[in-house]
Amino acid sequence: MEWIALVTLLVAAEYMFMTIMVGKSRGESGISAPKITGDEKFERVFRVQQNTLEQLIIFFPALWLFGYYMHPQIGALLGLAFLIGRVLYARGYIADPDRRGPGFVIGILATLALLLGGFVGAGLKLL
Amino acid sequence: MEWIALVTLLVAAEYMFMTIMVGKSRGESGISAPKITGDEKFERVFRVQQNTLEQLIIFFPALWLFGYYMHPQIGALLGLAFLIGRVLYARGYIADPDRRGPGFVIGILATLALLLGGFVGAGLKLL
Amino acid sequence: MEWIALVTLLVAAEYMFMTIMVGKSRGESGISAPKITGDEKFERVFRVQQNTLEQLIIFFPALWLFGYYMHPQIGALLGLAFLIGRVLYARGYIADPDRRGPGFVIGILATLALLLGGFVGAGLKLL
Repeated sequence: MEWIALVTLLVAAEYMFMTIMVGKSRGESGISAPKITGDEKFERVFRVQQNTLEQLIIFFPALWLFGYYMHPQIGALLGLAFLIGRVLYARGYIADPDRRGPGFVIGILATLALLLGGFVGAGLKLL
Repeated sequence: MEWIALVTLLVAAEYMFMTIMVGKSRGESGISAPKITGDEKFERVFRVQQNTLEQLIIFFPALWLFGYYMHPQIGALLGLAFLIGRVLYARGYIADPDRRGPGFVIGILATLALLLGGFVGAGLKLL
Repeated sequence: MEWIALVTLLVAAEYMFMTIMVGKSRGESGISAPKITGDEKFERVFRVQQNTLEQLIIFFPALWLFGYYMHPQIGALLGLAFLIGRVLYARGYIADPDRRGPGFVIGILATLALLLGGFVGAGLKLL
C-alpha cells in the first residue's frame, strides 16, 4: 500500500499548495478575513480549493478501499489521474470558470472508478 | 471490516449524489461559478452538501475507529443511521430550512456514538 | 497505533465543539440558514470551523501515515501540537481576525511535519 500512501501525500501536497494560493490571493485582492467574497479573482482561487476539499472527502477513502480490496498500483494510477485532473481544473477555473469542466470530469471519473472498484472488491470479499 | 467499507462507500455515493444536485441547481438557478449565493433554492442545496462535508470529516474516522476497536457490524448499523439521517436532513432542508433539525440530530447522534465507542475501545486497548 | 487513534478522536471532538459554536452563533446573531454572511461575529466563528475542516482533510491522513511509516508516539505529539494550535487559532480569530496567525502557523507546521515524515517513511519502505 506504499504507492497508495505516496499518492495520498502527493495529493495532500497539491491541496496544501492550493490553500497557500488562497492566502496569497487574499493578500493581493485585499479581501480581509472573515470575508470570502468581493473579488472575482479571489473567489475563483477560493472555489478551486473549496471544490478540491469537496472532492477529497470521498477521494481519499475511495483510493484506499480500491487499493486494499482491488489493486494498489491501479489505484495509485487512478489517484495520479485525479491529481492531474485537479491541476487542469485549477488552471481552467482561474483563467475562466467556464473552462473548469475538463479537469473536473477527469477528477470525478477517477473518483467514480475508485468508488466502484472498492465497492466491487469489498462486496466480493464479503460473499 | 468489509461492512464498514461498504457503508463508507454507500455514504460516499450519497454525498456524490448531493454534489450532482448542487451542479444541477447551479444550472437551474443561473448562479454561475464562482458565485455561491443569490438564489434561496440553490443556497439550500449547496448548504446540504457543505454541511454533509462538515460532518463527513469526523464521521469517516469515527466509523472506522469504532469498527476496529469496538464492533464492525454495530459500527456499520450506526453508519446506516447516519446515512438515513442525511437523507432526512436534505429533504427537510430543501423543503424548509427550519425542518432540517430531525435529520441533523439523527446524524450527529450516530457520529457521537461512533466517536465515543471508538474512544472507549482505543482507550481500553491502550491500558 | 492507539495513540494515533486517541489523538484523532480528540481532534474530532475539538472540531465538533467548533460546529456547536457555529450553531450557537447562528442563534445569537440571527443569521438564519441557508445564509452564512451578514454578521461579523458569526462569520468569524464560521470561518474558524471551515478553516479547521480545510486543514483536517490533510491532517488526518498525514497523522496516520506518519504514525504508521515513521513513529506513532511522535506522530501523536505532533497531532497534539495541531490540536493546541487550533485552540489558539480559534481564540485569536474570534477576538480579532488579524490575530489568527500564530495558531494557524503552529497547526500548519505540525501538518507539514506529519506530511513530510509520512512521505519519507513510505518512500523508504518502497525502496
